[in-house]
Amino acid sequence: MSRHVISGVFCAAATPIDADGAPAHGPFAAHCKALLDEGCHGIALLGSTGEANSFGIGERKAILEGAVAAGVPAGALLPGTGTCAIADTVELTRHAVDLGVKGVVLLPPFYYKGMSDEGLFQAYAKVIEAVGSDRLRVVLYHIPPIANVPLSLDLVARLIEAFPGIVVGIKDSSGKIDSITGFATAFPGFSVLAGADPFMLPLLRAGGAGCITSSSNLIARHLRIVFDGWDKADRAAAVEAAQGRINLWRDLSNAYVQLPTVKAMLARRRDDMGWSRVRPPFVALDQDELAAVWKRMADLEATEAGA
Amino acid sequence: MSRHVISGVFCAAATPIDADGAPAHGPFAAHCKALLDEGCHGIALLGSTGEANSFGIGERKAILEGAVAAGVPAGALLPGTGTCAIADTVELTRHAVDLGVKGVVLLPPFYYKGMSDEGLFQAYAKVIEAVGSDRLRVVLYHIPPIANVPLSLDLVARLIEAFPGIVVGIKDSSGKIDSITGFATAFPGFSVLAGADPFMLPLLRAGGAGCITSSSNLIARHLRIVFDGWDKADRAAAVEAAQGRINLWRDLSNAYVQLPTVKAMLARRRDDMGWSRVRPPFVALDQDELAAVWKRMADLEATEAGA
Repeated sequence: MSRHVISGVFCAAATPIDADGAPAHGPFAAHCKALLDEGCHGIALLGSTGEANSFGIGERKAILEGAVAAGVPAGALLPGTGTCAIADTVELTRHAVDLGVKGVVLLPPFYYKGMSDEGLFQAYAKVIEAVGSDRLRVVLYHIPPIANVPLSLDLVARLIEAFPGIVVGIKDSSGKIDSITGFATAFPGFSVLAGADPFMLPLLRAGGAGCITSSSNLIARHLRIVFDGWDKADRAAAVEAAQGRINLWRDLSNAYVQLPTVKAMLARRRDDMGWSRVRPPFVALDQDELAAVWKRMADLEATEAGA
Repeated sequence: MSRHVISGVFCAAATPIDADGAPAHGPFAAHCKALLDEGCHGIALLGSTGEANSFGIGERKAILEGAVAAGVPAGALLPGTGTCAIADTVELTRHAVDLGVKGVVLLPPFYYKGMSDEGLFQAYAKVIEAVGSDRLRVVLYHIPPIANVPLSLDLVARLIEAFPGIVVGIKDSSGKIDSITGFATAFPGFSVLAGADPFMLPLLRAGGAGCITSSSNLIARHLRIVFDGWDKADRAAAVEAAQGRINLWRDLSNAYVQLPTVKAMLARRRDDMGWSRVRPPFVALDQDELAAVWKRMADLEATEAGA
């Protein structure tokens, strides 16, 4: 996979919060380290699963600083730094680059809808030019179901051409396999990362670079089996089996609203009920939902232990 | 209209920017003063038409401070202070209250979609409680076509009940007359403000409190005729005629993408081409579009001068 600047299994890490609703820096750093131990190549913190847009600019910087200060290697980090405003995006991106991150994941400005490719190009260009660092690596963030601001093939092509070596990849959370493999086919060598686990194997076969997913908060090792073995004939059965298990976990994470469900699962995995807290506008699972998720989680774990 | 805490014609003021893309504080203050001279009761700056979400947190504070420092009366201002993040929304709202504004217009957190009423209630409640000022007056901002996070009647009812005297109104930019009059009917005395000019007269007749619109950057005096005369039998013809003219201006402002069109019209009105600048992701009208808009604008003005 060395032809990709950014490749591998990246976790869209969830962000624990304390009883006052503030980011819980200690548990977050511990989570990041555990994810790396569990097989993640890196951590795409402060994305949609990280509730980044529910944290203020200052809080976002503190979360990243806290992780690095606690010993999480900056070179393994892909923080989300995109906001609606160029000034704030520049501030967050420069801060991340100065800390030595591997790259940043950049949402388009997402308040206004129906913007032209020209307007979106200018927004990205102004950020990249204002940061003005040859250490900057940008992963574009295509997530129409949430941002409602899709990135077209034409726009991506134009950004790659205008900023070679800087605009190096895209996270595709469209939920559509044709979109994901379309980017990989159109731009060989560009780091196309799946935003949903079920697409990991098909994307790798289409020339993709890996994934940034929320399920990897829980099943990084399965994703590593797929990533490490997808192109090796003698591992085909193990890879298919791992992808199948991944899909079961993904289904479970969608049993209720995804983010609180993933955090409820993390509460069990990390044995810390604090993990179940979410920031408004999300609402934590209620006790019945939590119990149902934990039951299914235990069932999945038992099946895998016996496998 | 005295039963409404906030009533009248409020302009969703556009924000001029300089050649470097920074907010142009001098022209903005002059614009605000001109709007008040032209008949606006107040200025709802830093809303969707004000490109608020395209400015960083620091820029937003500077825009509001600059207007007040230049002599625009804070008591006439309804700045938009809602962001995706509670911490940033609290910072902007507290800053505005400390400057003595009449109230703030609050978007719900708008990144995540499909959130529950409970989650949105908690988000608003946390902001109001964190600001913790009895001088705070909140106008909720219902703008499904852009934010894609609608505010339900149930949610609004709950917020009014939980924060009496604080949550005093709603700006409805749904573009749907049934939605707008529905809020006015459901909550008598609550300040329901139309987000689109064609609904001004029907909303006032349904018990609404006025408007916050982008066209009032250009036609505040027409809106004042409607507002001042809608309930006076001897002015019925003049009111109907004014609403008709308002609708023609509104149609013109939608000839191309609305925000750059309104700014192009302001460039002519204020005799300052700087007004035609927009921030990405918007793109300014091209020369042909600008010429077409100016021609229609001149035609409208000529018709009105001869009326």
